[in-house]
Amino acid sequence: MTHKILLLNGPNLNMLGTRQPEIYGRETLAHIEQSCQARGQALGLTVDCRQSNSEGVLVDHIQEARQNHQGIIINPAAYSHTSIAILDALLASDLPVIEVHLSNIHKRDAFRHHSYVSKAASGIVCGFGARGYLMAIDAMADILQPQREA
Amino acid sequence: MTHKILLLNGPNLNMLGTRQPEIYGRETLAHIEQSCQARGQALGLTVDCRQSNSEGVLVDHIQEARQNHQGIIINPAAYSHTSIAILDALLASDLPVIEVHLSNIHKRDAFRHHSYVSKAASGIVCGFGARGYLMAIDAMADILQPQREA
Amino acid sequence: MTHKILLLNGPNLNMLGTRQPEIYGRETLAHIEQSCQARGQALGLTVDCRQSNSEGVLVDHIQEARQNHQGIIINPAAYSHTSIAILDALLASDLPVIEVHLSNIHKRDAFRHHSYVSKAASGIVCGFGARGYLMAIDAMADILQPQREA
Amino acid sequence: MTHKILLLNGPNLNMLGTRQPEIYGRETLAHIEQSCQARGQALGLTVDCRQSNSEGVLVDHIQEARQNHQGIIINPAAYSHTSIAILDALLASDLPVIEVHLSNIHKRDAFRHHSYVSKAASGIVCGFGARGYLMAIDAMADILQPQREA
Amino acid sequence: MTHKILLLNGPNLNMLGTRQPEIYGRETLAHIEQSCQARGQALGLTVDCRQSNSEGVLVDHIQEARQNHQGIIINPAAYSHTSIAILDALLASDLPVIEVHLSNIHKRDAFRHHSYVSKAASGIVCGFGARGYLMAIDAMADILQPQREA
Amino acid sequence: MTHKILLLNGPNLNMLGTRQPEIYGRETLAHIEQSCQARGQALGLTVDCRQSNSEGVLVDHIQEARQNHQGIIINPAAYSHTSIAILDALLASDLPVIEVHLSNIHKRDAFRHHSYVSKAASGIVCGFGARGYLMAIDAMADILQPQREA
Amino acid sequence: MTHKILLLNGPNLNMLGTRQPEIYGRETLAHIEQSCQARGQALGLTVDCRQSNSEGVLVDHIQEARQNHQGIIINPAAYSHTSIAILDALLASDLPVIEVHLSNIHKRDAFRHHSYVSKAASGIVCGFGARGYLMAIDAMADILQPQREA
Amino acid sequence: MTHKILLLNGPNLNMLGTRQPEIYGRETLAHIEQSCQARGQALGLTVDCRQSNSEGVLVDHIQEARQNHQGIIINPAAYSHTSIAILDALLASDLPVIEVHLSNIHKRDAFRHHSYVSKAASGIVCGFGARGYLMAIDAMADILQPQREA
Amino acid sequence: MTHKILLLNGPNLNMLGTRQPEIYGRETLAHIEQSCQARGQALGLTVDCRQSNSEGVLVDHIQEARQNHQGIIINPAAYSHTSIAILDALLASDLPVIEVHLSNIHKRDAFRHHSYVSKAASGIVCGFGARGYLMAIDAMADILQPQREA
Amino acid sequence: MTHKILLLNGPNLNMLGTRQPEIYGRETLAHIEQSCQARGQALGLTVDCRQSNSEGVLVDHIQEARQNHQGIIINPAAYSHTSIAILDALLASDLPVIEVHLSNIHKRDAFRHHSYVSKAASGIVCGFGARGYLMAIDAMADILQPQREA
Amino acid sequence: MTHKILLLNGPNLNMLGTRQPEIYGRETLAHIEQSCQARGQALGLTVDCRQSNSEGVLVDHIQEARQNHQGIIINPAAYSHTSIAILDALLASDLPVIEVHLSNIHKRDAFRHHSYVSKAASGIVCGFGARGYLMAIDAMADILQPQREA
Amino acid sequence: MTHKILLLNGPNLNMLGTRQPEIYGRETLAHIEQSCQARGQALGLTVDCRQSNSEGVLVDHIQEARQNHQGIIINPAAYSHTSIAILDALLASDLPVIEVHLSNIHKRDAFRHHSYVSKAASGIVCGFGARGYLMAIDAMADILQPQREA
Repeated sequence: MTHKILLLNGPNLNMLGTRQPEIYGRETLAHIEQSCQARGQALGLTVDCRQSNSEGVLVDHIQEARQNHQGIIINPAAYSHTSIAILDALLASDLPVIEVHLSNIHKRDAFRHHSYVSKAASGIVCGFGARGYLMAIDAMADILQPQREA
Repeated sequence: MTHKILLLNGPNLNMLGTRQPEIYGRETLAHIEQSCQARGQALGLTVDCRQSNSEGVLVDHIQEARQNHQGIIINPAAYSHTSIAILDALLASDLPVIEVHLSNIHKRDAFRHHSYVSKAASGIVCGFGARGYLMAIDAMADILQPQREA
Repeated sequence: MTHKILLLNGPNLNMLGTRQPEIYGRETLAHIEQSCQARGQALGLTVDCRQSNSEGVLVDHIQEARQNHQGIIINPAAYSHTSIAILDALLASDLPVIEVHLSNIHKRDAFRHHSYVSKAASGIVCGFGARGYLMAIDAMADILQPQREA
Repeated sequence: MTHKILLLNGPNLNMLGTRQPEIYGRETLAHIEQSCQARGQALGLTVDCRQSNSEGVLVDHIQEARQNHQGIIINPAAYSHTSIAILDALLASDLPVIEVHLSNIHKRDAFRHHSYVSKAASGIVCGFGARGYLMAIDAMADILQPQREA
Repeated sequence: MTHKILLLNGPNLNMLGTRQPEIYGRETLAHIEQSCQARGQALGLTVDCRQSNSEGVLVDHIQEARQNHQGIIINPAAYSHTSIAILDALLASDLPVIEVHLSNIHKRDAFRHHSYVSKAASGIVCGFGARGYLMAIDAMADILQPQREA
Repeated sequence: MTHKILLLNGPNLNMLGTRQPEIYGRETLAHIEQSCQARGQALGLTVDCRQSNSEGVLVDHIQEARQNHQGIIINPAAYSHTSIAILDALLASDLPVIEVHLSNIHKRDAFRHHSYVSKAASGIVCGFGARGYLMAIDAMADILQPQREA
Repeated sequence: MTHKILLLNGPNLNMLGTRQPEIYGRETLAHIEQSCQARGQALGLTVDCRQSNSEGVLVDHIQEARQNHQGIIINPAAYSHTSIAILDALLASDLPVIEVHLSNIHKRDAFRHHSYVSKAASGIVCGFGARGYLMAIDAMADILQPQREA
Repeated sequence: MTHKILLLNGPNLNMLGTRQPEIYGRETLAHIEQSCQARGQALGLTVDCRQSNSEGVLVDHIQEARQNHQGIIINPAAYSHTSIAILDALLASDLPVIEVHLSNIHKRDAFRHHSYVSKAASGIVCGFGARGYLMAIDAMADILQPQREA
Repeated sequence: MTHKILLLNGPNLNMLGTRQPEIYGRETLAHIEQSCQARGQALGLTVDCRQSNSEGVLVDHIQEARQNHQGIIINPAAYSHTSIAILDALLASDLPVIEVHLSNIHKRDAFRHHSYVSKAASGIVCGFGARGYLMAIDAMADILQPQREA
Repeated sequence: MTHKILLLNGPNLNMLGTRQPEIYGRETLAHIEQSCQARGQALGLTVDCRQSNSEGVLVDHIQEARQNHQGIIINPAAYSHTSIAILDALLASDLPVIEVHLSNIHKRDAFRHHSYVSKAASGIVCGFGARGYLMAIDAMADILQPQREA
Repeated sequence: MTHKILLLNGPNLNMLGTRQPEIYGRETLAHIEQSCQARGQALGLTVDCRQSNSEGVLVDHIQEARQNHQGIIINPAAYSHTSIAILDALLASDLPVIEVHLSNIHKRDAFRHHSYVSKAASGIVCGFGARGYLMAIDAMADILQPQREA
Repeated sequence: MTHKILLLNGPNLNMLGTRQPEIYGRETLAHIEQSCQARGQALGLTVDCRQSNSEGVLVDHIQEARQNHQGIIINPAAYSHTSIAILDALLASDLPVIEVHLSNIHKRDAFRHHSYVSKAASGIVCGFGARGYLMAIDAMADILQPQREA
């Protein structure tokens, strides 16, 4: 059976590649999503990609994942630091969750050091740029298909 | 004249009955809403029910209540702790507001102890599970129809 | 079998009706206690009423309730914010506890926002004035006689 | 060439003129927007007006401004104090940003003293009521057309 | 008419004269009370003296003063820093209140710098040793008999 | 009748144009004062200009304004963050007060984010460089001559 | 000469053996007191035992100990964390003081980590259950009869 | 021998009687100073009066008092809360110091609750309005002429 | 050319597999190191493994890596939260640094949420158990051999 | 069977008897260790003694105790307040741990009030000087040989 | 060419030698200034000496130094902890600045631990008494005449 | 007699001259130590030099200095901010201690502003680069040979 995972990106990540490349890199979100889908396919995973600037819509997607997916990879961006609603949705999903941050949030403003979402994450990948999503795909494959792991 | 009240539920409460029942109980939101409408009917109140995962949509509903309703019962869930926008909408509504929490938020994570919404509430009912909504309906009836009160 | 519950009021509540009515309302404590006993009787509950200005005497009453009562309704007033002794007595009682506040403590001085007693409460009713005691009686009846609940 | 600027108003500002006039004044938002457009026209600026109660929609508008506008005037209202997502969108816009508050937020509740949005603002106008928007239009005209400035 | 005032001393002040004289001086409480009564008599005031180590008993005395006295002079000692119950009793008394401290509490441990009771005091006399009580008697006479004041 | 306003500049602003131009710009204080007087004249206002490095002298000027002026525009510079004496003088002046900051203090050191003076200000203009003084003159004219406002 | 020591137990400790045995153990207070008296007797100490739920009564007992006893062993329970009055009474007693806690308060709620009473204690024994009282008796014997110590 | 004392008033107190009378009363500073001198004369004290809005000038006066006076009565007004320089000058003076506040600073803004000056004061008189100065004169007379004290 | 990387493990990680497996898993450190070396070999990397319980020895190893290695993977364990010396050594090394934590430190005690080491890390992998080391090896290979990256 | 326990002393305790005797007493560490070994022998315990100034070496000793000992008595001295590594080692040891402090750390600098090690301790003995070690030996004997306890 | 440096002393330092010698030593300021001038002369530096109790005058002197001097040695005394105005003047001076404190401020009251002025200092000399000024003169000579340095 | 002093350098200072020269300068530690020994020789002091990355080894060196040296100059580097063990060793040494920092720690990260070691230092020299060590040698010579001081 193929596992389906949800790759969820939060506010302003649709601007990737055009915005503050010294922080976020030069790859567009579309390109990252394609890389993730390709990597997923190679590992036997279907990767569904969603992005929204709205906290409520992100909550909606997480709730739906409960029926449709076996895992969630989320870069909550600015909502990492302010959204208890997303935390609650992830806690309620009963799915493995991997949190990704493009930049190392611990080197940035103090208000970016704390993430509510981390309370619901199995694991966190932070500071590796676009490469971090692929690391998360690999790790999710291991989690969902433990026998794969060497 | 029949009073109309708005029963507003915040993020993730649409998942009630399926999610973390040890915290939130096993009743679905639909069932709770029906109980509230039945109780309201018995007390001469029409109870309009809305739920949204979006802070902005909740603000919209509160603004509309100003025209259409005589009171608001709200369980702001995660937005209790983070939303000044909902607080401002409630303050602007000039309606009696009752805040309901299913669980006793003072026994949970420290970041759930503080509610911005409480600044706009006439009264607060916290920790009684689904029963809390009925307590709020009863209290709202008393507030809107003081002569009923013994 | 009739359940017996303890209705316990803390410091200065014996002055109700005479003191700062804009905060606490105009009903006397005696009148509130009679209303509670009447409501209790209607619900099959005996309501024992005690008030004390002394933290230690309140602890004594709670300890005795363990033998004599099946539930405690407490308005700890000023001791809400300062008494760990009352918290410990309630935790040790193994009885359902409902905390009542006449005013919405979250709209008052910052030092009144936190209640130690909430850590021991099943549920909290706050800001409904004297009506809050009746709501607590109703809820306690539901807790002690769950089959009553619809 | 005519510059286009985005005038963006946050949650509850659609209620202006009807809500808490002692804090926010008696002018409606429609009237303010018309005044701004008139003032803009006199200064050679087209002023596009948007309002939303949703954090995500405000982020959407700011992202679009990057293509369509040369400056942003924003009254983020309650989201000033809670939205890092709006801050990030403004930082990513690479446009001059002026932040407007109707009331002097430093005279209100402590939780209204801090604005995340100020981190992205060129300038801030606070406490002048509806007049503040016109001050911002004037200042934006100066910023976009420096030769105008005397 | 002669005014009656209540002179209320809190915990451990019954030990005055025997305990830590470098902080509290060498006069006994009995001697201080006699001096106060003598001074009161000279000014047309009856001074009733009470001391208790119990927070609840101090609250009782304050409540009774409401009927029997026209002013309260209180040295709440350790309860200054911890008792909201005494604060509430004083607020409810509707009487002029003068707070006295023998030592300058601002030169002692940090936890002695803050006094809840000060929120209810008309005036505060601090650091003058036993002389502070006489200053309070004089000031209370002035407050109750303003025509006396030159 | 012509209104007279006091334009008061605090410590180190006499160094404007020579000091840290990347923060404060290249205009001298003399030039700014002349621009303000010219703008004032055009609007029917006499603008008296004072600068001092001394907190006490600034308090003196504010006290005198009470007799001689109808409004105060003040850039308190470093004293914004440390002077309660200036705050008290402004509160006592009973005049409309506009606070100006050349730079956006919210983008600078944390100890520059808070201004005591804001507690006494009608409005605040921050981050517009020398242009901010002209915005303040315009706004003061509107406040003093409300019929001028369109 | 036989030394007399006061063994003082604070609020809720009269419930020992019946309440939360996973925290406080299964021995009753009467049994603990008997063990202490037996141990004291073996060491040449008379052990007087008192318990009260009232802060004021505990202060009374400490004051009396000054005349009648040569040392104090106190488990202040909940008052450890809130009572400056007990601290002051102990400081005034001029007696050696040993503080006992049944459980390790540093593993429990954060508000139980701090003890005012520790400021007056010669030594502290914490986390050894009922055995801690015997350790305190032994240590007090050593303090009062130093030649005994090997 | 006649003792000389310095009566020192801080910033904005020269405005007394004209400014915020609901906080500071209606008496002018000149009138207060005359009352103090009259009272001093009756008690055998010469009272020298100084007022300044400048922290530095207040320090100068305190330094000179060391040679010329035997005691200092100071109302540091706003500098109470911000001036370590005045604290240091008072500490260096080696004179008895009485601190006076017209209003009860503990009922006002939080930033007015703390006084550096209190660290150098023998005693503090707070909240008695202009009467507080006379209380301070009386107390200073007692301190300087202890045999007077009854 | 083959790159050499240093895999550095901090205090108590030599106990892996035997200690608190519910937090740290059941694999021994030796097994993890072998897996990392095998993975490294497959990617063209030599992986040198060191472990120490001593902060100073860890600093020594990091200093030596500057000469001998091209990258550092470090699990600082308890020193993450307390060691500025390790942070300084990493900053001085001028090498890419990846920080690994076996467990999700954001779900554990509050004092484990903050890592000084993160200030020096290129990227962070947290909460994936032993798998996290392999993710770090993969990412380090990508960093050192960017052409490998797809 | 004889139980073996590890008596571990932290930094600077090797200086005992020579250093700050007013805080730490006049006994040398060698003498204390001998007393402990003698007491242990009397109780059927072998007491192994170690001291180190190095956090890492202390961690090493604790790890080894897991194989070789049945209990740990530790005076972590300065590392009490700063070492999470020692805490983790103790948690991993699965042995009963007793923490000893010679002086009452709650009467000293604020930064000495908190001990990480207390999170891993069964019991704590604090403020009894060298006698505290013997109390810990006795208590450890009781813990390891519960039948001994009377 | 001879360099000129400004030696600036803040509030209460004119009292040196007479005030609290246990903290500040017994040398007068005049003597210290003469020593500094002598030492300066030996090193080819002219040392101009100023002292003021007024923050504003100190700012004036620093501003003038910009034209007349090549370096500033400042002991800001109490203003170290409270004056952002002096910090700003020093930052604007573009001169090397050395901060001197007679006593070790880190051993005194907590409010003396922080110095705003340190943000503008090249170097700081603290706790060496009057000798610290000579150390600063020497260091300033090295900074201004680097070839001197061996 | 020649005095011997210990020059002790903490973690990472062995990397001086190679690491972050913009912060720490370009001189190697060996060169600094030679300069110090030469300067010491000229002043009649033998300077023993030690460096370690280990907190425990630094404590060892300080303990030994008690027998062998008459003064300690220490740059504790990162351990300044985290080591109470080094503070305790210095306090126990009964020797004059001078603390040196190459950079001005008050201009760097907030966690570098506080130094535990300062509590044990006679004097502190901060921000003068390598020159600071020579200043410390000079000052130590003055302290040990006071007659030298002019």
